[in-house]
Amino acid sequence: MNQLLLSNLFEQAVQRNSQAVATLCGTSKHTYEQLYERVCRLSNALANLGLDQGDRFVVLMLNCHRYLESYLAAAISGRIIVPLNIRWGAKELGACLQDCVPKAFFLDAVIAQHLTPFLPHLKALGIQHFIYCSDGPPPDGMVSYEELIKNASSEPPTVTIEEDDVLGLFYTSGTTGVPKGVMLTHKNLMMNAYHAQIGLEFRHASVYLHAAPMFHLADGAATWTTTWNGAAHAFIPKFDPADVLNAIQKWRVTNTVLVPTMINLLINHPEFSKYDVNSLSQTLYGASPIAPELLRRAMKALSCRFYQGYGMTEAAPLLTILSPDNHEHALKDPKRTHLLASAGKPLLGVQVRVVDEHDRDVPAGTVGEIIARGPNIMKGYWNKPEQTAKSLRGGWYHSKDMGRFDEEGYLYIVDRKDDMIVTGGENVYSTEVEAVLYEHPAVLEAAVVGVPDETWGEAIKAIVVLRSGAKATETEILEYCKKNLSTYKVPRSLEFIPELPKSGTGKILKTVIRQKYWAGQERRVH
Amino acid sequence: MNQLLLSNLFEQAVQRNSQAVATLCGTSKHTYEQLYERVCRLSNALANLGLDQGDRFVVLMLNCHRYLESYLAAAISGRIIVPLNIRWGAKELGACLQDCVPKAFFLDAVIAQHLTPFLPHLKALGIQHFIYCSDGPPPDGMVSYEELIKNASSEPPTVTIEEDDVLGLFYTSGTTGVPKGVMLTHKNLMMNAYHAQIGLEFRHASVYLHAAPMFHLADGAATWTTTWNGAAHAFIPKFDPADVLNAIQKWRVTNTVLVPTMINLLINHPEFSKYDVNSLSQTLYGASPIAPELLRRAMKALSCRFYQGYGMTEAAPLLTILSPDNHEHALKDPKRTHLLASAGKPLLGVQVRVVDEHDRDVPAGTVGEIIARGPNIMKGYWNKPEQTAKSLRGGWYHSKDMGRFDEEGYLYIVDRKDDMIVTGGENVYSTEVEAVLYEHPAVLEAAVVGVPDETWGEAIKAIVVLRSGAKATETEILEYCKKNLSTYKVPRSLEFIPELPKSGTGKILKTVIRQKYWAGQERRVH
Repeated sequence: MNQLLLSNLFEQAVQRNSQAVATLCGTSKHTYEQLYERVCRLSNALANLGLDQGDRFVVLMLNCHRYLESYLAAAISGRIIVPLNIRWGAKELGACLQDCVPKAFFLDAVIAQHLTPFLPHLKALGIQHFIYCSDGPPPDGMVSYEELIKNASSEPPTVTIEEDDVLGLFYTSGTTGVPKGVMLTHKNLMMNAYHAQIGLEFRHASVYLHAAPMFHLADGAATWTTTWNGAAHAFIPKFDPADVLNAIQKWRVTNTVLVPTMINLLINHPEFSKYDVNSLSQTLYGASPIAPELLRRAMKALSCRFYQGYGMTEAAPLLTILSPDNHEHALKDPKRTHLLASAGKPLLGVQVRVVDEHDRDVPAGTVGEIIARGPNIMKGYWNKPEQTAKSLRGGWYHSKDMGRFDEEGYLYIVDRKDDMIVTGGENVYSTEVEAVLYEHPAVLEAAVVGVPDETWGEAIKAIVVLRSGAKATETEILEYCKKNLSTYKVPRSLEFIPELPKSGTGKILKTVIRQKYWAGQERRVH
Repeated sequence: MNQLLLSNLFEQAVQRNSQAVATLCGTSKHTYEQLYERVCRLSNALANLGLDQGDRFVVLMLNCHRYLESYLAAAISGRIIVPLNIRWGAKELGACLQDCVPKAFFLDAVIAQHLTPFLPHLKALGIQHFIYCSDGPPPDGMVSYEELIKNASSEPPTVTIEEDDVLGLFYTSGTTGVPKGVMLTHKNLMMNAYHAQIGLEFRHASVYLHAAPMFHLADGAATWTTTWNGAAHAFIPKFDPADVLNAIQKWRVTNTVLVPTMINLLINHPEFSKYDVNSLSQTLYGASPIAPELLRRAMKALSCRFYQGYGMTEAAPLLTILSPDNHEHALKDPKRTHLLASAGKPLLGVQVRVVDEHDRDVPAGTVGEIIARGPNIMKGYWNKPEQTAKSLRGGWYHSKDMGRFDEEGYLYIVDRKDDMIVTGGENVYSTEVEAVLYEHPAVLEAAVVGVPDETWGEAIKAIVVLRSGAKATETEILEYCKKNLSTYKVPRSLEFIPELPKSGTGKILKTVIRQKYWAGQERRVH
């Protein structure tokens, strides 16, 4: 009876806000009472299809209200949701499906177009049901989502869920390319909702926009708090700067979650100034570090309160928050500007340490690996007991992120352990070099990686995307670096490319960038 | 690793606030770093005395910093604290001690004075150690707290605690007179800290005053959040209006918790206006309903933000909160005045329902029993499996409080199930009658009970304490009731007494008031 269950969160939201708007998606609109009925029907439909408690169903689709309903159905029925990355290719998707062995597959019209030829292969993997989540008649071999729920009972499902039961498997590709399924329990996600409720002001949300992809926990951080507070969920299919601006204006969006690359695209949109974005009062950004210069421009363009969140799927996802007050102080007081580069402080309820290779705390100012403990930390990796044991050794989650605390307790993410460059025996954090590149007026985006070098072990290479219409030579930009960096941190070479490779959440994929330079060689990760 | 432990809460507070002031008590003052060291020493001292994990120690003393340390030592060492009511007589104390079989007994100089003659009896119950928590040399047969911790190691204890382990037994006397030990786990108290963190603004506390007795969860509601936020704990031995006013002025107290009777005494203190109480920014009151008139006067006298909390020991303790905004709206807008009589809305994380005798929800506006579910709800009653099963039947805690929700979802506590009077077949809630009595200018305090009556089953009797210097006759006051109540709710008789019997937390004891009228008869509780 004192279990931490998302079903209780949802029930409490429905009890308190039954007539409030719950979802806004295209032209559809449902109240919390209607949402609850639809989710109960979906839960019963899953039972009718033969899915038992603990059985998996995958969701591969763009953002929509039915995506939210499938999350909520998992929460109240005890089935396990597996949200899949829409940018993945056949190889990664196949690996996930073989790993989690789902019984049902939720997809939309966009995905169906690509997937129809592969249905026999998917059926051969044991997937029995393909649930078509767009409007209109489903393609052959699929059942309509709306038909399915129309024919199911609206009674709340009667199941016993334990808080340590897995609610979702969230696959992360990691740096090895083999996707790992992060097992997040009802308790993990519930406790992250508590942490977000305390650390963010999303309790004041009235309309939250799902702009970041819903398969990713960056958006998921807000999904449960938005529901808990009885706020409205608004959806756009996927991130597109004009769609975001339009949605904010149309639905008077108050809160959203973006990643830095999205913020960059949003504020650089040529028609940005034509939209009324005044309703927006809070934006959480995160998922990757942000260059101070970009943040400065974003704060000017969007006059809302900014939160930086730092975390990862394994932490469901939040570990630290840089508060709006921190942001404001940093802009007003030149002595506090450095805070803009910080990820803030650990959320109440989450313990974060920075340690050396023997898990001993390092002093403030020293870089080490970031490790964390809290009720939000994952149960482990699905089917991967060894990787689980390694990642959670000593009762602490090892993030493989390198960072440092300052004297005041603010955390700075320095680099991915894997992205750190060791050149001539010195550690160089790629992000520090990138921050300088971003300050150059001609640079739109930049990535810095280590490439093989016979003399130095690794040499620093900069990959740069220039702003539209801007011109700069390799020499000019490297000269700029020399003025602003210690000699050993200056890139030895620079390459211009039209676009950086990115993940489904807009993260720059340095593993992909490195590939061509390391072809045929194994890079030693430090 | 994802356990909800108070030891993590305490460690996080120490990590983040090591040099902040943690305790202010008389002339003593400790930082969080010092507090942590003292608590580690105390934990190791308990081990040295032969207390294993799960062993009980009782604490019977007035408020002081050592009381807080004993709570924290239980939290980090896995021993069970049993805070005892300082107002209890030998009968109740004996019953508690026989029930929980403690190995050690913490007491102070005031208690030692009374207890010394009984040491042999207490030793015969199996209590081996008497720990004297005041300054100066301990009486014979006792050991000095300060000596004990001085001689123990300062290493953090290495024990494995599970979140469902019991942290404390909190004895409540209930209406039957046989004390029941409420088992609250680490998780229960941790989750209440989360709820308080969300529902109260105690995160903005800088100095919290322990004015209400520390054995009671009304004060305990703030103990853990104050620690979590790294705020200072200030202590006065026991509630005394002048001591409270003096402490607020001396330590610049920002937050406190009081019960209505204490607020009444505080604002009626003849020297109230001589003290500077400006630092006080938030006051939580609760533990019993408050008459609207008293609240109105308190809000005028103390210009701080008021929270009303409703809960009970079994809920660790908070269920609902009436927010400061609610209080302000109620005073400004005559249409919202009724809110002052409400206990507010359920905290996020706590589910509250109002049900009939078959646990079916009753509609808004209808009175029923208040039941609750959440991660803060007790594990059960120590050694009382049957009462536990009855109280927690169907997975919901049955409070025996009668209440109703209004259309907006605000909860109104109408009466204790046991205090409801059934007269001539009508249900009369004693508090409704009392509210009218409190409006009479001559009335300082009032209690309304049912007394045996051959014709009506029960007849309504009012017990009244007049204000100092005020005069009023029985007839005058009953006439006033007739003007303001339906006929069947008007007391049939009224008695003046100099003082109402009260519990250690200032609750008016209607069971004691009823005793003389029901002598030799059993009252049927509805």
